[in-house]
Amino acid sequence: MSSDSKIPLLQVETQIAAIALPPEGFRLVSGASLKKLEIAYETYGVLNTLRTNAVFICSPLTTDAHAAGIHSLEDKKPGWWDDMIGPGKAIDTNRYFVIAQNMLGGCKGTTGPASIDPDTGKPYGSGFPKITVEDMVRAQRLLVEHLGIDVLEAVIGGSMGGMQALQWSISYPGKLRKCLCIAAAANLTAQALGFEVIGRNMIVRDPNFHGGDYYDTETKPENGLGYARMIGHLTYLSAISMHEKFGRNKREGFDPNHFETGFEVENYLKHQGKQFVMRFDANSYLHITYAMDQFDLESRYGSLENAFREAQAEFLLVALSSDWLFPPEQTRELGKTLLGLKKVASVAELHSPHGHDAFLLEVEHLSRVIHGFLEKPAATSVRPATPKRVRPGGNGGASVEFQAVADLIEPGSHILDIGCGDGAFIDALFQTRNVTGIGIDRDLRHVVECLRKNVPVVQADVDRGLKFFDDDAFDYAVLNRTLQEMKKPRIVLKEILRVAPKAIVAFPNFGHIANRLSLLRHGAMPVSRALPHYWYDTPNIHLFSLNDFRELCEEEGYRIEKLLTVTKSAGSKLLLGLGLKNLGAEWVVARIGRG
Amino acid sequence: MSSDSKIPLLQVETQIAAIALPPEGFRLVSGASLKKLEIAYETYGVLNTLRTNAVFICSPLTTDAHAAGIHSLEDKKPGWWDDMIGPGKAIDTNRYFVIAQNMLGGCKGTTGPASIDPDTGKPYGSGFPKITVEDMVRAQRLLVEHLGIDVLEAVIGGSMGGMQALQWSISYPGKLRKCLCIAAAANLTAQALGFEVIGRNMIVRDPNFHGGDYYDTETKPENGLGYARMIGHLTYLSAISMHEKFGRNKREGFDPNHFETGFEVENYLKHQGKQFVMRFDANSYLHITYAMDQFDLESRYGSLENAFREAQAEFLLVALSSDWLFPPEQTRELGKTLLGLKKVASVAELHSPHGHDAFLLEVEHLSRVIHGFLEKPAATSVRPATPKRVRPGGNGGASVEFQAVADLIEPGSHILDIGCGDGAFIDALFQTRNVTGIGIDRDLRHVVECLRKNVPVVQADVDRGLKFFDDDAFDYAVLNRTLQEMKKPRIVLKEILRVAPKAIVAFPNFGHIANRLSLLRHGAMPVSRALPHYWYDTPNIHLFSLNDFRELCEEEGYRIEKLLTVTKSAGSKLLLGLGLKNLGAEWVVARIGRG
Repeated sequence: MSSDSKIPLLQVETQIAAIALPPEGFRLVSGASLKKLEIAYETYGVLNTLRTNAVFICSPLTTDAHAAGIHSLEDKKPGWWDDMIGPGKAIDTNRYFVIAQNMLGGCKGTTGPASIDPDTGKPYGSGFPKITVEDMVRAQRLLVEHLGIDVLEAVIGGSMGGMQALQWSISYPGKLRKCLCIAAAANLTAQALGFEVIGRNMIVRDPNFHGGDYYDTETKPENGLGYARMIGHLTYLSAISMHEKFGRNKREGFDPNHFETGFEVENYLKHQGKQFVMRFDANSYLHITYAMDQFDLESRYGSLENAFREAQAEFLLVALSSDWLFPPEQTRELGKTLLGLKKVASVAELHSPHGHDAFLLEVEHLSRVIHGFLEKPAATSVRPATPKRVRPGGNGGASVEFQAVADLIEPGSHILDIGCGDGAFIDALFQTRNVTGIGIDRDLRHVVECLRKNVPVVQADVDRGLKFFDDDAFDYAVLNRTLQEMKKPRIVLKEILRVAPKAIVAFPNFGHIANRLSLLRHGAMPVSRALPHYWYDTPNIHLFSLNDFRELCEEEGYRIEKLLTVTKSAGSKLLLGLGLKNLGAEWVVARIGRG
Repeated sequence: MSSDSKIPLLQVETQIAAIALPPEGFRLVSGASLKKLEIAYETYGVLNTLRTNAVFICSPLTTDAHAAGIHSLEDKKPGWWDDMIGPGKAIDTNRYFVIAQNMLGGCKGTTGPASIDPDTGKPYGSGFPKITVEDMVRAQRLLVEHLGIDVLEAVIGGSMGGMQALQWSISYPGKLRKCLCIAAAANLTAQALGFEVIGRNMIVRDPNFHGGDYYDTETKPENGLGYARMIGHLTYLSAISMHEKFGRNKREGFDPNHFETGFEVENYLKHQGKQFVMRFDANSYLHITYAMDQFDLESRYGSLENAFREAQAEFLLVALSSDWLFPPEQTRELGKTLLGLKKVASVAELHSPHGHDAFLLEVEHLSRVIHGFLEKPAATSVRPATPKRVRPGGNGGASVEFQAVADLIEPGSHILDIGCGDGAFIDALFQTRNVTGIGIDRDLRHVVECLRKNVPVVQADVDRGLKFFDDDAFDYAVLNRTLQEMKKPRIVLKEILRVAPKAIVAFPNFGHIANRLSLLRHGAMPVSRALPHYWYDTPNIHLFSLNDFRELCEEEGYRIEKLLTVTKSAGSKLLLGLGLKNLGAEWVVARIGRG
């Protein structure tokens, strides 16, 4: 998984699969059909004898089938996702048989507008029918079958490939165990559409476009295609990454008479445009971006809920913080839908300054997330037969009350663990009390640890995280991270009793005798086992006592169903024995319910 | 100032000023010169006899001189900033004589590429020399002189007009008393340059451009200009505003054969492009955007500091939160520079979902800010002769210690008031103790109140706000908002003792006897005069006692120079009399210094 080993170890070859078709050909969503379907693909790793270790890579906008490795030893440029795919890498070819391909409509070996139309013996050009993401995915499915594979361990896609991965989970629910969608969404935003529309317009109105039939002309619609690429390229970068990359640096030798500025960003964009027209076909660009623009699971299936109702895969959605082509809000919305449907789904949000391109550039973080998600086989509900004792989590001093929390949860429940840390606690509940559920945590390291345990997790702050869930989505909400760290404890309490009828809340009791005496005697904020921080850097920003808590519950109309008090001190145990809970409890664990 | 009165009251006329030029003409920064200079302008309101009430409006990218009012009673569309300029509006024509104009290089009456070149008797076209923002501002200055005005009360500009306003303060330091720069910056970001560059490229390479000499041809470079406008338009909007405006709504009657999508955003952009080519000249667009791209105060003057060193105006910089063409970071950077130079400068950041366009759309908030800034004449250091007693601020229960704070500040100091509220406190200090200084507050209403009092203010959270200031920028920093509300009190303390050698900190003392006894007796978080909130919604998230504070100061090596204790209770006064400060003080006011 180390990104140090930049030397590609795989020497590979692009192959062409001639897909066997029924007499009517490859029927498209539009009703049109293609008589012939060829798909360019590459594979890495070895298919196991049970054929259960195949991972399918969907295609971003303009990539070819060459996702990893090199074509020859002289080849200086490895495949486009070589950082991610290979022996020991995030998508580990020592474990998985990985399939990459050029998408339908492309121009790198798969049937597309530049392919020969069997009816005319000439390139399709303007005759190439409109295609959809659904069509692309059906072609991908045929390729998988062609390779003799039925069920895929995972389908993985970033950007437009993420849209394809989502479509896979809808079109072929039983044929993939995991679905990993990175920096994508269920449709494009109005802003993204705006850029797309301008780009396509420039190609179509390029005088050299000839309505799409330019293959036997001397000139190609290179101006239009180049501009479209330049605009597209701007949407892949973030303001910060552009600032870092170019700033306002200038080069010599520009021509002000043609209004050239000499800014490096100008040279870069022109270069990108020029390079692109050499390697890409304008018609493919039109058809593929058109399919992307039209992709809209909501309008296609009536609602996002309808779209995913039958999906069976375990999902991981990854958003990139500075991605403005597919903004993180869209990923959250999608995650909310999947979780509302009680699908097994995790949502991660990688912090990155690199915009949409982070999906190709943030190798280290993305590797850890993908690797974590692929580490265990998909959960098949097989739980160990012998219940284990709950392992305490890694919450430091707070671990004393974990067993108490576990005891308050009924076996078989569906639970939300708020501030779930590395997932050890919820995982232990999975394994001992036959519960299902999900965690919330904002720390990427924790999220990766959860994924590695097959514990579904939403990466978010608590305040935002709770918005992911519908009313009554759970039987229990567990607030391990403790109420006193919340910015708005009263609102958080209300929220957790919205998503679950019962909540289990653990907190340090500021009314404990040691705290009272400490303040009285020393006139200083107490520092104790339960409250180990100094006042100025404590995470405990809303201290309260058991009595304070009781009062709030009463005010809000919450029922305290069970109350466990925890202390390690002998003196305090005596107080608890006398029934003096607010004096004796260092920690309190309460199960509360709506009134 | 109400935005209800949408009916424009001003009937106006665009006039053309023929600027008197020396024999060499209007010399440009490039060295070239224009033989003739005409400027289209409008004025609103009446110039007073002393000619001291003139306000100059700089021009955004594509506007004309018609900024306010209507040209005839049949005129349905008032001037482009009519929301802001008029009787009783933010730029009040009952008080001010307002001048608007079409910028140099434009195509609406001011000399530009489409004007007749006196040398040839034909339009300049490709012969029009390159112009800069400096040239534009010099032309504006000549217009002001032409109107018989020497010193302007204010120069106001948004977007590219904001760049011009900044240039005014540099080119003519003594000729404007106030400078208001909205949604602009000292240069364009790499991202903004990227969009500009593509747009201009498309014009220059339009086959109908003819190198710029298309005035006597039948076709104009309309495609290129239309695309440039479409791209530009996308940068004026935010993702959210586009989502709200268009979503993924579709219209009927689109042509999929030409890859039209029917999305409303497509129709809108095409419409914008079409409209624009009817009203704007491609050469003007090229020259003006080129000048904007080249505008860079840092490279022109060596550094931002050098650029503004001689500036004399009072500045107000306004950023728009969702503006990604001129992101708020740039405004903050500029504010930091001005404040570092000890200029009188305020920085406001309007929260708006409308992107860059908010400068035309957020009428209500922007009106309040502009109106506040223009309310009083520029401060001329005239202070009332009779010192007044300090008025307590509006901080509710916290006001008891305000007089104590004031007493700790030496007259004549330069102070920073952190969490300055409506500015009453710092204003009272201005007037009674002859201090200078600035406030920080995050609430727009407070910022407007400060502006109305001529109290310079930075709109920001405390954490971010302190970054505005250099080391030792002040003699005193005052933390009225009280340390216990800060997320990271230790770091805030360090920061305030970075920006000033001495700080005055006021806080409620958790060690006060009533708090101790309350916790001891009731086992509940104290609610008192000094700490009036319940635990769950208190802003006081880091409670501490006088002793805690002393200890932290000791640890960090800060010297406590003066310590005032405040209480209203007779019993506590007795304790204070016995020297038991940590028991007796409800509030503490401490002046601390670096060790």
